[in-house]
This record gives sequence, structure tokens and C-alpha cells, in this order.
Amino acid sequence: MSNRILNFSPGPAALPEEVLEQARADIWNLDGSGIGVLEHSHRGKAIDRIFDEAQADCRELLGLPESYAVLFLQGGASTQFAMVPANFLPEGGTADYLNTGAWSKKAIAEAKLYGGVHEAASSADSNFSYIPNRDQTSYSAEPAYVHFTSNNTIFGTQFVTEPEAPSGSVLVCDMSSDVCSRPLDPTRYGVIYAGAQKNLGPSGLTLVVIRRDLLDKAVREVPSMFRYHLHESNGSRYNTPSVFGVYMVGRVFRWILDSGGLSGMAERNAAKAKLIYDYIDGSSAFYGTARADSRSLMNITFRAPTEDLEKKFIAEAESEGLSGLKGHRSVGGMRASIYNAFPPVGCEALVQFMKHFESRNG
Amino acid sequence: MSNRILNFSPGPAALPEEVLEQARADIWNLDGSGIGVLEHSHRGKAIDRIFDEAQADCRELLGLPESYAVLFLQGGASTQFAMVPANFLPEGGTADYLNTGAWSKKAIAEAKLYGGVHEAASSADSNFSYIPNRDQTSYSAEPAYVHFTSNNTIFGTQFVTEPEAPSGSVLVCDMSSDVCSRPLDPTRYGVIYAGAQKNLGPSGLTLVVIRRDLLDKAVREVPSMFRYHLHESNGSRYNTPSVFGVYMVGRVFRWILDSGGLSGMAERNAAKAKLIYDYIDGSSAFYGTARADSRSLMNITFRAPTEDLEKKFIAEAESEGLSGLKGHRSVGGMRASIYNAFPPVGCEALVQFMKHFESRNG
Repeated sequence: MSNRILNFSPGPAALPEEVLEQARADIWNLDGSGIGVLEHSHRGKAIDRIFDEAQADCRELLGLPESYAVLFLQGGASTQFAMVPANFLPEGGTADYLNTGAWSKKAIAEAKLYGGVHEAASSADSNFSYIPNRDQTSYSAEPAYVHFTSNNTIFGTQFVTEPEAPSGSVLVCDMSSDVCSRPLDPTRYGVIYAGAQKNLGPSGLTLVVIRRDLLDKAVREVPSMFRYHLHESNGSRYNTPSVFGVYMVGRVFRWILDSGGLSGMAERNAAKAKLIYDYIDGSSAFYGTARADSRSLMNITFRAPTEDLEKKFIAEAESEGLSGLKGHRSVGGMRASIYNAFPPVGCEALVQFMKHFESRNG
Repeated sequence: MSNRILNFSPGPAALPEEVLEQARADIWNLDGSGIGVLEHSHRGKAIDRIFDEAQADCRELLGLPESYAVLFLQGGASTQFAMVPANFLPEGGTADYLNTGAWSKKAIAEAKLYGGVHEAASSADSNFSYIPNRDQTSYSAEPAYVHFTSNNTIFGTQFVTEPEAPSGSVLVCDMSSDVCSRPLDPTRYGVIYAGAQKNLGPSGLTLVVIRRDLLDKAVREVPSMFRYHLHESNGSRYNTPSVFGVYMVGRVFRWILDSGGLSGMAERNAAKAKLIYDYIDGSSAFYGTARADSRSLMNITFRAPTEDLEKKFIAEAESEGLSGLKGHRSVGGMRASIYNAFPPVGCEALVQFMKHFESRNG
């Protein structure tokens, strides 16, 4: 009916079809205004309402107290990799980073432009197949902040909960690939940032949740676009924002709220991942690459016995309408990305396909 | 039929309806791929094609030689305000800026974070109602670059052609509000940047055209996201870009090519603006705010005899389906923004409305 296939893409990724349908209407004519959502002034009433609702729904969803600000920015996590240390890592100071893979490493590289970096933990010794625990983590004396990547798309690992940072330290999280996929205690964080293109919407929009007392704590003069305070005091419209990005993320927030909120998402996501992990664990043809206690519920990375079989698997899956299962080019193998909007029925279809593939190639 | 009204918004602004119709289809299913344009991996073949075509069409449209790179970035002109001096203005050096209004001033403020700024010309003496000419411009001895704003949305002024910068100097232009509205000689520029949301597409996408020899001429170490070279060597996909932004801008490039290219746009835009300016010049109720030789073909700023009449004009226009005619809050009055996609028939409708308003309030 829909002519749409199963999209296991790691991001940009599948979006809720209800949201896409609404977007198709609103691009032509938003709320009967006679003007499409892409064409409205970002300072007009129609867009005010979109920003207000997106912010309110985000607050409700994450359970944010008034002491936190919600910003909708551009530039993705890659911009936050620099914006965080530019604001909070003084020259001569040290920030602690938990290194759990490629994205952590990119964040570390940007921080080093501004100050010292202490790698408080790393799972590089095992090609990032696990999340270091508290005993494997050694913080510096007075870190400017502690940074971690909650979910690692390439290696298929995920923190079960936030790390125990030293008391009083500011916890900063790149939550790009699992934001809003499960409940969290926002008050444990100083800054949460997330590119929208996995769990929240289209690419080109970054969600930033920041404790208000940090807004004007910048340790150096930075360009206006790097000033959290300026974005906040202008309601994320210091400059022309990605209006469509905020619109879409707002629709997705509403979809999550209507789907049981973060608890509903967590339940749905856990069930989806369990289907696939259970099959992998019982299979003699496939094996997971992440350590069991560190497995991601968002990105399921797995291998077949040979690279030839992996190529065959990916090609045959594609031809049967299961798209995007190729692992990241840096690690190979397979990866099923099953973010919030990915439907449970798609996980069932993958398991069926894997069974069938195994029976033919066992 | 369409339920759409006339949208004179200064940006985000009206887009070609053919492009919107196509977007509505492609959001659901791009080119029969079974996946919508918002959901495709930015590194997959479907999006490769979109980026390749957008770049090729941009090159054709602007007549760019191979010595120029085309980048699709995020963060708008406001990010370029900082990225240009971060890359090209050495500490202790001087960049020349032509100050023709609010956007020039914002660009100047960001440059001052990095080095010296020489205001080579300014029309502040007359509230930016004109474009300074060569005689009114005094360049510094060896400017790192010369920066100007080709069209000034708030004050309704526009450079007729690029300023004559000292020979050998690098000309940098914020072309956000008139890019692709008329032919230009790209070889006179070092850097052209433009937020897409006026003439090219939705907000959240920045077009940058840069002479290749400048790509790696950065005078200081900057964050990765500020490195032109890194964006170029990664085909504007160093990080996850605004895929939808590039898609839309690509569709608009194609629409311009199909509409006679930049000459076709120039002719169409000149005719549209002439309709309104001619009426204003013959009117005893309305008067333009920009000096005749500096008038913008994109933003027509005008006033009525009293602020009360202006309020009445804007409100009555709105109720008759002519939206977005209020002038910028910093200057008041009225403004008709008639970028590339704004239809000629809309300009005729505005003139009719003005006539009718004048006859009732004359």
C-alpha cells in the first residue's frame, strides 16, 4: 500500500509515518494559514507556536525542571564537540572524556583545541566492544566537565545509565543516537546534546538541553553562534534557525508522548532489540560484536562467519526490502539500526529473514 | 484552488509551488526507493545523487569555473560572519567591510573577535538608505579581504554590481538575500555565502562558493566545523548535513535553470520590482525609503504618510491574503519581499491593493 520498505539506516533514519503524512500537508499549507511550513517567517505567530510547542513537549517528555533550557540549534553533534569545550574548558584546565569509540574520539580531538583532555576511561583495548564500568574509570582531580557518548552507533554499545561522575562535576552527554529512547534523570546532566537525525527528526537540527546556570559560564569569548546564552535569550532564534527541523522534531516529540512517552519508547525499543538479540544468541550463523552487558538497543551490530556471506546477506536483504543493514565502513559486518520510529514489525521481518538466510547458508 | 495566499515574507519566504509539490511526494518515497528523502542515509547513493546534482546545477547556474568549490553548510550567514574572519583575518591584520546596514554590522562585530576591521564605507549617515559609491569608499592598504552585503533586506537597498575592491584583494560577499537573482561574474569573488531561506530554499542551509586556493589558507587553527577545506574534501558531508536543505536547494536550482537561468530570473525580478516602484513613484500616498539608485529588487521598503495608515495598510492587506508586508521592527513601515519564487501576479495584486487603499484613504 505504502510503497515504503524497511529502513535500517543508522541515521538519517526512519521517521514515524504519521509525522511524514502531516509534514506533507503542512509543507503546502500550515494550519490553514495559506503558507507552507517552509515559507513562514521564523518570527511570525505560526512559527512561534511551533517553537513553543516543541519546547513544551520536550520539557514534558524529558521531565525537565525550570532550571534547564531547551535549545534548537544547527550544526549537529560535530558543532557541539567544539562548542562545549569552547565554552567550558579553560585554557590550562582539564576535561574528562570517556572514550567509547569514534564519536568520543572526535569530541576529544575538538576539546584539545581549547584545553587539556584526560581520558578517564577507554574501551579501545577491545575495539570499543564494551562500556567501561566505574572500576575501569579514573577521573582527574577537578575536571571542567565529564563527557560521554551514551550510545555508540558504530560499535553497537550503549551506557545502561549515565556514568557516576565525581560529585559536583558537570556531566555532558552526546546523546545523538539514543535521546528520548528511554527515561532518564535530567538533573544528573549539565549539558545533553543530540543531532536529531536518529531518534528525533531530520538531519540539520541539534537539540541542546543545558542547565541554566551554565548558560553564561563561558570561559572565553566565542563567536555569537557559539554562545549558548545568546541562543537561549532569543528563543533559539538569534539567527534564522532550521524551522523545518524544529517543526519535525516537535511532531516527533508529540508522537512519542502519544506513544507512552519515554517509558513507552523504552518498552517498545527493548522488545524490538530483544527479538533480534535473542535470535542472534541462538544462532550458529550470526554473532553479535558488542559485549552482552554493553549492547545497544538502538544499533545491533553483528557478523556472519565470512565476509562473503555478509555481502550476500546485505545484498539479499536489500532485494527483499530490508535496507541499510551494512555495518559502518570502519568495522564491516552488519548493523540493524532500530531507533524509536523503527517499527516492531520490521524487527520481526529481520529475524524471519535471518532465519531463512541461515537455513539456506547454514 | 490551492488555498495558498500571497507571501511577502522577508525570509523564510515563498518557494516555487512545483518544488513544494515534488517535496511532498519525495518525503514519502524518494525516486521509488521506498524511503523518504528525510530518512535516507546521507552517505547512500540516493543522497549522493542529490548532492551531485545540486552541485552541478549550482555550477551551471553561476557559471563557476573548476577553480571554485561549492559547499552546503549549516548555521546560516551568522556562522559565516565568524567563519570568514576565523579563517582569513590574521591577528593584527585588517579586513575591510562596507557597512550598508544591520547585517554588515553583525558581520563586522564577529570579525572584531579575530582581528582589525576597517570600515571602508558606510551609509549610516543616512540610516542606510543608499549604497556608497567608489568615491565614498576608502580601502585600507592591504586588507585581508573586502566584505560586503549585496542586498540589505531591512533597508531595501542593493548593490547594482560588486564593489571595485583593490586589485588582488579577496572579495567576500554575504549574498543571502539576492543570490541567484541575477547574473554575476563569479571570478570577481573569493567567497560568496548565502543562507538559503530567501532565494534558494528552506532555512537551515547555507550555500558557500569559495575559490579553491583559499580552502587551506586558514590563518589559525579553528574547530573542524569551521574548516572550509574539511567540508570540501568530504563533499559537504564531513558531518551529517541538512539533507533536506540540499535536496530543496537542488530542486530550486533546477527550477531556476528551467526558468531561464540567472538572466531569466533577473528579467523576471526586474519586471516584478518595476511594477511596484513605478506605482510608488506615481503615488501621492506612498513613498520609498531607499535612494532611487540603490533600490533593491528583492525587498521594496516603503512608507505611508502616518503610522496609523501603515498599520491599517498592513492589517487590510493581511485580511485580503497579502501576507508579510510589515517592515522590519527596527525601521517600521512596509516591506514587500519579492524573491525569485515570488510570482509576478503577486506584485500586480499588491499594486491593485495599493491603488485601492490610496483611493479610499487619499
